[in-house]
Amino acid sequence: MQEKIHIDPALVERMLLDMAAHGSDGGTGVSRTVYSPEWVGATGLYAKWCEEAGLQVRMDAVGNVWGRLEGADADRKAIVSGSHIDTQTPGGRYDGTLGVIGALIAVKVLRERFGTPVRPLECVALCEEESSRFPSANFWGSRAITGRVGPTDPDTVIGYDGKSIAEAMRDVGLDPARIPEAVRNDIDTFVELHIEQGPILEHADLAVGLVTGITGIRHYGVELTGIANHAGAFPMDLRKDPVAGFAEITSGLVDTAHRWGRPAVTTIGRVNVKPNAPAIIADSVGFTVDARHPDPEMCQKLHASHESLMTEVASRRGLGLKWSILMDHPARPSDPDTLEALKAAAAIQGVPTIFMASGAGHDSQQMARIAKTAMIFVRSKDGRSHTPEEFSSTEDIVAGIEILAKGLHTLAYS
Amino acid sequence: MQEKIHIDPALVERMLLDMAAHGSDGGTGVSRTVYSPEWVGATGLYAKWCEEAGLQVRMDAVGNVWGRLEGADADRKAIVSGSHIDTQTPGGRYDGTLGVIGALIAVKVLRERFGTPVRPLECVALCEEESSRFPSANFWGSRAITGRVGPTDPDTVIGYDGKSIAEAMRDVGLDPARIPEAVRNDIDTFVELHIEQGPILEHADLAVGLVTGITGIRHYGVELTGIANHAGAFPMDLRKDPVAGFAEITSGLVDTAHRWGRPAVTTIGRVNVKPNAPAIIADSVGFTVDARHPDPEMCQKLHASHESLMTEVASRRGLGLKWSILMDHPARPSDPDTLEALKAAAAIQGVPTIFMASGAGHDSQQMARIAKTAMIFVRSKDGRSHTPEEFSSTEDIVAGIEILAKGLHTLAYS
Repeated sequence: MQEKIHIDPALVERMLLDMAAHGSDGGTGVSRTVYSPEWVGATGLYAKWCEEAGLQVRMDAVGNVWGRLEGADADRKAIVSGSHIDTQTPGGRYDGTLGVIGALIAVKVLRERFGTPVRPLECVALCEEESSRFPSANFWGSRAITGRVGPTDPDTVIGYDGKSIAEAMRDVGLDPARIPEAVRNDIDTFVELHIEQGPILEHADLAVGLVTGITGIRHYGVELTGIANHAGAFPMDLRKDPVAGFAEITSGLVDTAHRWGRPAVTTIGRVNVKPNAPAIIADSVGFTVDARHPDPEMCQKLHASHESLMTEVASRRGLGLKWSILMDHPARPSDPDTLEALKAAAAIQGVPTIFMASGAGHDSQQMARIAKTAMIFVRSKDGRSHTPEEFSSTEDIVAGIEILAKGLHTLAYS
Repeated sequence: MQEKIHIDPALVERMLLDMAAHGSDGGTGVSRTVYSPEWVGATGLYAKWCEEAGLQVRMDAVGNVWGRLEGADADRKAIVSGSHIDTQTPGGRYDGTLGVIGALIAVKVLRERFGTPVRPLECVALCEEESSRFPSANFWGSRAITGRVGPTDPDTVIGYDGKSIAEAMRDVGLDPARIPEAVRNDIDTFVELHIEQGPILEHADLAVGLVTGITGIRHYGVELTGIANHAGAFPMDLRKDPVAGFAEITSGLVDTAHRWGRPAVTTIGRVNVKPNAPAIIADSVGFTVDARHPDPEMCQKLHASHESLMTEVASRRGLGLKWSILMDHPARPSDPDTLEALKAAAAIQGVPTIFMASGAGHDSQQMARIAKTAMIFVRSKDGRSHTPEEFSSTEDIVAGIEILAKGLHTLAYS
C-alpha cells in the first residue's frame, strides 16, 4: 500500500493546546507531575479523546491510560504507540505529550481510514517518566508495565514534598497493591514518538529522525582525594592537589568522547570541592561522570576507557580514587525490522529522514524488555527540551505523526 | 661581636605552654580570637611577662601589647620584633605565638646580657591577623599601626556572631574611635619570627630559613559561562561546556606555576558549578584563582600569563569569561640590609639556613609600609599550620630565637 497518510495540522495544534491547559504554568510552560490534579485532568482528557475516537479505554493499575482498537485476530500481540504524559516543572507543551497525542491521532486516523486492523492496535499515555515529583520514580509507568516495580517501591519512593508515591496514588483513587496488574505480556511492538531534545536534526535541516537505539547511560560518582594544604606555603612540586587531578581527568574524559565522535557523549555535570576555599589546596573533589553510547559494546569500551584514564591519572598524581556506579541503563538498540518499517513509511510519505541514536533515556528503553521497540524523533528548536521554550513546528510534528501512522499501518494491518 | 647568644629551651617551652592555656581547645589545640576572654587572658599574661623582663609595657588603642626597652638615643627609630597573638579556631600553639614569645625572650636576654641598647628595642604581640573571628578584619593589628584602618571600618567589620569589631573592642575596654592613636611613625625595622607553614625547610633538613620577601597574592574570582543542555542529546562537537573549559584552564594555570618552579604557586581552591546536576551540561562555573610570587615583577608576569591563558581558552571554546580581583596584596621583598644582618647572625650562631620566600601573608607585609622588614621561619612538622597538629621542635625554635636575638643585637646595639 503505497498511499500516503495525511494528518490534519489543525487537529494536532488543537490537541496540543488543549492538553497544555492541564498544568499550564505561565506562557508556554507546563507543570504536570504524576498523580497531581493537573495529571488527573490530562489523563481524563486523553481518555475522553480515545473514547471519541472509538477506542476501548481503560486506566491500568498504575495510571497509564490505554486506548485500544481491537484486531481481527484478538489473540495476537498488540502494536502499541505512546509516550509519557507527565512533564518537568516547568517543562513545555511537547516532549512526551507529543508522543501521547501523536499515537492517539495515528490510531484514530488508521481506524477511520482502514477500519479493523489484523492485530490489536493501541495508544497509551504513560503516567510517569520525568521523576519531576518523585526523584527515584523514574520510568514508573513503563516499569509497571514490564513488571519492574518492586513490592516495596510504592512506600519507599518519596516525593519532594515528603509524600510517598503510594499515598499520591491513593489520593487519585489508585491502589498501589494492585500495580502488578499493570503488567503486559501481550505487546509485540512499541513505537514511541518524541521530540529530539538535541540539535542534530536542526543541524541536518531535517524534520524527522528514526532512532536506531537508545543510548546506554552510566553515571559514576567519583571521589578524588589529595592533601589539603596552605595555598601559599606549599610548593607546586610537593602538592597532592585533587582539583588539578580533576582537571586532567575531566579534559581526558571529555576529549575521549569528543574524539570518538557522535554518538559518544561524556559529561561532568556535578562537582563538589572540599573545603572549597580560595587559599586552601583542596582535600577532595567529588564529581559525576555521565557517559553514554547507544551501541552496547562501544558503551562498555567507553566506560572502560574512562575508568582506565581516571585510574592512571590518580595513580600518577598520588591521589586517592574511589567511584561508585549511581545509575546504569544498558544501551537498547531498536528492533531492525520495526526500524525498516518506519524507514519504508518515511519513504512513502516522502519525508527525508536520517537514522540517529537517542542520547536521552526514554520509556522505550523499559518497553524493550518485553517488546520490539523503535522511536521517531521530531526536530527541536535549538535542541531544547524540559523548558517552556521547547518548540517543534506543527509541520514537523505532522510529518512525524504521518510516518508513525504509516508505520503502525504496516505493523498492525498485515 | 662574634659571641653566640644562648636561649634557655626550658623558658621557651614553659612560655609556649603557659600561653597555650589561654584558649586551650582540647589536646594541643588553641582557639584564641581577637578581643575574646581568651585573648584578654593571653595579652594580660604577655604584659605581665614584659613587665617582669624589665620592659615598659603598654597596650595601644587597638589592642597591640608593646614591651619597650628604651635606647640610649631615645629619639632614634625603634627596632621591633613580634607577631600576632590570635589563632585560628582551632589553631595550634605555635604559628604567630612563636614570634610573640620569641621577640620577648630575645629582648629580655639582650637586656640581661647587654643592658641598654643604642636604639629603642621593642617586642610586640599584635592583636589580630587570622580573621578567624571577623572575616574581613585581616591584619587588624598591624593595619592600625600603619594607619590603614579606615574610620568606618570598626562598625562595618562584622564577626561570624553578627557583632561588629567596634562592639567587640568596647567589650574589652577599648574605644574604637581612638584606633588612629595606634599609628607608629617611629619604627626603623620590624623583624618577625613565625613558623614556616610549609614543607620547604623540612625537605631541606634545616631548622631555620631567612625570608627574602613575602609573596604577592592575588585572588581572582572567575566566571566561565557556556550553554546548559541535555547531557545525552547534545553531541560533543556542538557543546559549549564551561566545565570542560574550566578543566583546560585549571590544568593550564597549575602547569604554568609548576613549570615556573618555586616560589611561584597557583591554586584553584573554590569551584561552583551551576546547575551542578549529573545529566546537565553546566551553564556556568565560578572559581577562584590564587596566584602568588614574591618577586613583584615576576608576580605581575604570572598574573598576566594566567589572564592571557584564561582569555585564550574561553575565546577558543566560545565561552563567556569575566573576572574580578577579590584580593591583591603586592609582593613585599625583605630589606636587604636587615636580611644580611640576620644571615651574619645565623653564621655566628652556627645555624645553617637558606634564603626562602614566604608563600603566606604576614603582618610584616603591612609593617613594610612604614619600616624595613625581614622574617625568620622555623621548620614546621609536615609543613602544617592552622591546626592543633602544627608542631615545631624546641630545638628548632631555640635556633630561630637565637638568630633573632643576635640579629636584633646587631640592629639595636650599634
